[in-house]
Amino acid sequence: MPIDFVTDPSRYRHWRLACDGPVATLTLDVDPAAGLFPGSELKLNSYDLGVDIELADAAMRLRFEHPEVRVVVVRSGKDNVFCAGANIGALAQASHAHKVNFCKFTNETRLAIEDASENSGQRWLAAVSGTAAGGGYELAAACDWILLIDDRRSAVSLPELPLLAVLPGTGGLTRLTDKRKVRRDRADLFCAAEEGVRGARAAQWRLVDELAPPSAWEEKVRERALALAARSDRPAGARGIALPPLDRTIGNGAIVYRHVRMALDRARRIAEIAILGPKMVPSDLAGIHRQGARFWPLAMARELDDAIVHLRFNEPELGILVFRSEGDPAAVIAADTALDQFRDDWFVREVGLLWKRVLKRIDVTSRSLFTLIEPGSCFAGCLAELAFAADRALMFAGTRAGDNCAPAALALSRGNFADYPMGNGLSRLATRFLGEPASLERARAAIGEPIRAEQAEELGLVTATYDEVDWDEEVRLMLEERASFSADALTGLEANLRFAGPETLETKIFGRLSAWQNWIFQRPNAIGAAGALKRYGSGQRPEFDATRV
Amino acid sequence: MPIDFVTDPSRYRHWRLACDGPVATLTLDVDPAAGLFPGSELKLNSYDLGVDIELADAAMRLRFEHPEVRVVVVRSGKDNVFCAGANIGALAQASHAHKVNFCKFTNETRLAIEDASENSGQRWLAAVSGTAAGGGYELAAACDWILLIDDRRSAVSLPELPLLAVLPGTGGLTRLTDKRKVRRDRADLFCAAEEGVRGARAAQWRLVDELAPPSAWEEKVRERALALAARSDRPAGARGIALPPLDRTIGNGAIVYRHVRMALDRARRIAEIAILGPKMVPSDLAGIHRQGARFWPLAMARELDDAIVHLRFNEPELGILVFRSEGDPAAVIAADTALDQFRDDWFVREVGLLWKRVLKRIDVTSRSLFTLIEPGSCFAGCLAELAFAADRALMFAGTRAGDNCAPAALALSRGNFADYPMGNGLSRLATRFLGEPASLERARAAIGEPIRAEQAEELGLVTATYDEVDWDEEVRLMLEERASFSADALTGLEANLRFAGPETLETKIFGRLSAWQNWIFQRPNAIGAAGALKRYGSGQRPEFDATRV
Repeated sequence: MPIDFVTDPSRYRHWRLACDGPVATLTLDVDPAAGLFPGSELKLNSYDLGVDIELADAAMRLRFEHPEVRVVVVRSGKDNVFCAGANIGALAQASHAHKVNFCKFTNETRLAIEDASENSGQRWLAAVSGTAAGGGYELAAACDWILLIDDRRSAVSLPELPLLAVLPGTGGLTRLTDKRKVRRDRADLFCAAEEGVRGARAAQWRLVDELAPPSAWEEKVRERALALAARSDRPAGARGIALPPLDRTIGNGAIVYRHVRMALDRARRIAEIAILGPKMVPSDLAGIHRQGARFWPLAMARELDDAIVHLRFNEPELGILVFRSEGDPAAVIAADTALDQFRDDWFVREVGLLWKRVLKRIDVTSRSLFTLIEPGSCFAGCLAELAFAADRALMFAGTRAGDNCAPAALALSRGNFADYPMGNGLSRLATRFLGEPASLERARAAIGEPIRAEQAEELGLVTATYDEVDWDEEVRLMLEERASFSADALTGLEANLRFAGPETLETKIFGRLSAWQNWIFQRPNAIGAAGALKRYGSGQRPEFDATRV
Repeated sequence: MPIDFVTDPSRYRHWRLACDGPVATLTLDVDPAAGLFPGSELKLNSYDLGVDIELADAAMRLRFEHPEVRVVVVRSGKDNVFCAGANIGALAQASHAHKVNFCKFTNETRLAIEDASENSGQRWLAAVSGTAAGGGYELAAACDWILLIDDRRSAVSLPELPLLAVLPGTGGLTRLTDKRKVRRDRADLFCAAEEGVRGARAAQWRLVDELAPPSAWEEKVRERALALAARSDRPAGARGIALPPLDRTIGNGAIVYRHVRMALDRARRIAEIAILGPKMVPSDLAGIHRQGARFWPLAMARELDDAIVHLRFNEPELGILVFRSEGDPAAVIAADTALDQFRDDWFVREVGLLWKRVLKRIDVTSRSLFTLIEPGSCFAGCLAELAFAADRALMFAGTRAGDNCAPAALALSRGNFADYPMGNGLSRLATRFLGEPASLERARAAIGEPIRAEQAEELGLVTATYDEVDWDEEVRLMLEERASFSADALTGLEANLRFAGPETLETKIFGRLSAWQNWIFQRPNAIGAAGALKRYGSGQRPEFDATRV
């Protein structure tokens, strides 16, 4: 059974979403029997991927469907426990690839929470009553503010090291060092303390932001929520945009959405993803709101997002993603123009931010990315980012015999330079041209004009161009060569070459933290028969090889 | 047989060092039969750790023994090959821990070259005639300038992906993206091309800096070397400081140097490293030069450096380093004062830079670091860095009964705030107090005064303090607990917690690049029986699991 990422609040098993004016409350109340994998019981509000899929859905819906919500309060529906973190039984039995992708998706969800806070005026408050352990504390750390009940029992902890011989790998270590800026020796003590830290010490060490006595708990939660809401720029009196289920047909060799068509070629290990450009884009704000979830940039982004996570979890052997597009570049530019012109509108802003996040998800997807820019394609503006996100972008020069399409053209918009930063904080073009600032300026000067193959190559926007004589053969050879390389070496190579320049909290999570965690996820001390993950809960102590590397 | 890092030019098997006025020539001419491991033949100027130990020694001696040298030309003593990179036979048979530490040491040597260029006015020129492949190109990339002969044969390449299913992990990928700022799709093409890139394309892609025709090769090498030398601030007419062999006695449970004593407690997995403070420090520059290699900060740094690399390679199960010190804090401060007062002197500058590099080596050592600040210790100024480099620093409050020593005191100097930056570019104190700038200023205000336990804790300079009643027991329990944790989880934890804040080329090499490489070094695609490293040179093609993670 493939893992499905499509859900909605009516189907949640683990979260309850309640909105009350500017305050939404998201209550974690995990159904222990509703784990994604048979046999794993999700005790003590521990989570598996299924729980996080619902959280990701809720975080997205809050932004689109609830313009009135200015603060989201995360709390627990269970007594004595806020969240016990990732479910160890589920983690221990998962494949290496599932472990890695589970952590990655969870990290993306945490970062989406921070993106809502930073860019959408939707602040998050963790109201921690009971223990927040491991991933539970990491979830709280993704919020703007951690309020901890001071009841002599409730604690925050990262017990991964002592209990499981792995890392707090869902951003935990990086948020300690780079977000909360906890002194390193205190972070070290904290990560070694199975029981965690509570009360005044938790506040003094900056592990939490505020304490509240049990007698004033609800009052304090409300007060802090309203204080966070007061700093929001969410609109007054706006009407939300409902996100209906995706129009999606899953076949064996294809997944077809409305604007995205994905063909799965398992023999060649390729997923070919074709994006269909818009037919018509409203030129006024009222028209855009009327379209709502049908507004092309939103609909397309949701579909592509679903396609990417589907591939990550359900098609691990398709090591190459080939992006194509079909449509009218002018219509894509019209969409870009609308995104730019109405950027102050809350909904239009959300659409741009979603596209930014989808592109970032592609950046950290461990598959080789090829973009083919052919006659009939529409890699313009926001879609041109798929050429710059690719490990290689190949462009067809001239036309095809017997084909009515004009020669392929790229087109740039202002957005390519500003609106879709990578995790490193730079645009893909700025990252691409890190060593050649003049090339960045030459590209900027080309905004708005159709850029044919020869010029695109000269501007450094594409990797190579081929004409009709060579195209099919060159593309075929390149993809065959890629499929022949070690999947692991490619993953490491791409994770390095894609992230030139500055590092941020976000890139440190996917680079430094995740790479070390993935290494540990291969080590016998964690996953061997006598390793800590395998022996957790068995009553037997793990056995460790003491060799340091 | 333990691996020994002590060598000198008279014992080199693989390099020839020749100095001619401002130009030194370092010729790589690997003796194939003189590999570190029996059975591996170092063909085509390929290297193992033994070759890099000599390079590290040469780079260090050039700085201390040759103040007249302003440029170092690296070239090959063999026809048709500059350097074929790491020897694959040696790599394939090495343990995981050796692979990881070999890469780390090699990375440190490359960074020491860049440090000489940036801070000592000793520029490095790679004169590449013949193929520079893999680690051979990575060595060239550590130089200031890569001159490539344009003879239609000589090429630069990073063939690790296609040939070996691993990464160019000795800084290769990071120097492509962050030093040479090669466009990412070109870097991708380059890393996939077994045969590499030569001639005009290599220059156009910024893989090399300059081409020279064979007819003008020697002339061009000389010309470029002198041009690099012209920008140097190395002194005129200075006399070098000879570095004699270390005064070292290796026993079974101890290694004793003049200023460093190391006790190896294998049962408890602890290496206890005691630093002895100076007796007397010259207060004038002439006296310092007269002392030369006996100048305490230099002698101590060389000894500690040797101790650390010895532990890494030869004592993999000693997971905990405990730093202690003995001596007069005032004498250490006198050394700091000399380092500060005479910082414009080339030799004094070198001593400070060496201490900086030794501390960085400690930062990236994958052992838990504890510093014990006790009565009789001298953690002052430059030695106080060992408290700030530690994962935890514990301080003894008060005195010991029956002991004549005064209570322990820390002391800070200006150097703690400026002279010994970590790889992230910040001082250890600035990193420590990333979230509390006021604490950094309070520490600065305490420069020069003895800081007793209570004040040290209050200033946030130490992790915890204990008095005589609790000290022994608390320290014992803490070390026992540490030894009980998974060695791998600790390695990952420490690699994250030690590097808050900005990332640099250097931290990206040890974080992002090395962590991914270490992960790959665990994967069957590389090291399995049918993996690429194992099958390299066998005539059999490797077999790969296509699963992406």
